[in-house]
Amino acid sequence: MKARDQIRTVGLFGHGAFGRLIVRHLGPRFDLHIHDPNPAGTPEFGRFCSMQETAACDVVILAAPVERLAQLIADIAPSLRPGALVLDVGSVKTRPAILMRDGLPSNVEIICTHPLFGPQSAAGGLSGLKMALCPVSGRRWRLVARFLGQLGLQVITTTPERHDRDMAMVQGLTHLIAKVLVQMEPLPTGMTTRSFDLLMQAIDMVRHDSLELFLTIERDNPYTKDVRERFFSLAAELNETLSAHDRALTTG
Amino acid sequence: MKARDQIRTVGLFGHGAFGRLIVRHLGPRFDLHIHDPNPAGTPEFGRFCSMQETAACDVVILAAPVERLAQLIADIAPSLRPGALVLDVGSVKTRPAILMRDGLPSNVEIICTHPLFGPQSAAGGLSGLKMALCPVSGRRWRLVARFLGQLGLQVITTTPERHDRDMAMVQGLTHLIAKVLVQMEPLPTGMTTRSFDLLMQAIDMVRHDSLELFLTIERDNPYTKDVRERFFSLAAELNETLSAHDRALTTG
Repeated sequence: MKARDQIRTVGLFGHGAFGRLIVRHLGPRFDLHIHDPNPAGTPEFGRFCSMQETAACDVVILAAPVERLAQLIADIAPSLRPGALVLDVGSVKTRPAILMRDGLPSNVEIICTHPLFGPQSAAGGLSGLKMALCPVSGRRWRLVARFLGQLGLQVITTTPERHDRDMAMVQGLTHLIAKVLVQMEPLPTGMTTRSFDLLMQAIDMVRHDSLELFLTIERDNPYTKDVRERFFSLAAELNETLSAHDRALTTG
Repeated sequence: MKARDQIRTVGLFGHGAFGRLIVRHLGPRFDLHIHDPNPAGTPEFGRFCSMQETAACDVVILAAPVERLAQLIADIAPSLRPGALVLDVGSVKTRPAILMRDGLPSNVEIICTHPLFGPQSAAGGLSGLKMALCPVSGRRWRLVARFLGQLGLQVITTTPERHDRDMAMVQGLTHLIAKVLVQMEPLPTGMTTRSFDLLMQAIDMVRHDSLELFLTIERDNPYTKDVRERFFSLAAELNETLSAHDRALTTG
């Protein structure tokens, strides 16, 4: 490893549910500087710092909601060190990649990431959990991918566009179906099939996710709207087919 | 056990996928008579017999599609023995219970059942699988429940109406969602979340089920139409809310 690859300080923007998970896993390995506009509690590792101190670290991680990303990038850009490595961790990648490429100095390296799990799944450890990684600029993404692999994560290297296309289906569909089914509760719990049990487990994993995340998935991913409308259109078609059958049975 | 409880011969109507599963589990314990209008292959246990011989057994199991049940009941009624125990195994229970109560002689006992699993789930054994049991007439349903428990099944005693209300949600929703999602394939397989993986597992369990079963669930269960329309109406509402957000973003 060359001297320039040495990473000592990590700056973390955002001490929410996911920020705290980052603290837990990076805290024992790096000198952690944390900034949050509304700092709450005491961090498990590291310490709360000013925006400038946090932005001046070797690695800077943006764990703020997607809609605050543009402002955050504008705020930290002047304080970043040349050669710094900047990563985000949001659920969409096309727009953050553009915002970061356009808004950050050209002498920093940029990697967009999306850990494909929530704090709930990570409670039992990171082993086997998936993480999407989109290299945007610089070469140290290979180093980061190797490090994440050492943490036990399964790293999937991709592009922001490919990520968003797949996630429009993966997250778009699960969250959409969950939102509808949660409104149909109470649903049966005793007399159930294995298939229904699996469906309920899928829903239980996303039902407590924030409205913010739901709106990020549904609106900030440029491909979700098409997936959603295709789902609704196929559902409406099926409903029409079945209603026609019902009418045939009634009048036949 | 009283002499009248002694069960020696079992008559099985239907040698389809589920009929063959019944043969596998009852064949080693009873003298099995099987009738199928289109007998195929050689049964694993027992032998193909005439409709009359099959109907004259101590226990008679109707494993024919729900839409053929009315005709089957009419056909076998004259050949049933007084005191025989007649069971069905279909995915809906309200209508079959009425058909059996109205169409079978009053000197037979009637139990409606619904094994809440397919041959695929039962490939690894019956242990822990659920089975709904609706006593319709007679007292030997307790004996049957105990026997099924000894096979490892988790028996849920209920009424046809309660069964159909719960299954309208359990099977109605899983099969409906599966039908729509299968039409959206190819869906991502690599870059996925745990929640999406569970959703896909749920779908894989029902995707190869017959169109016949789908129509039974969607049309022969008197409560499914309401569940379906509620799902579609909530989905349309959500789509409208999200589209309004999209418009606000575009024009805002």
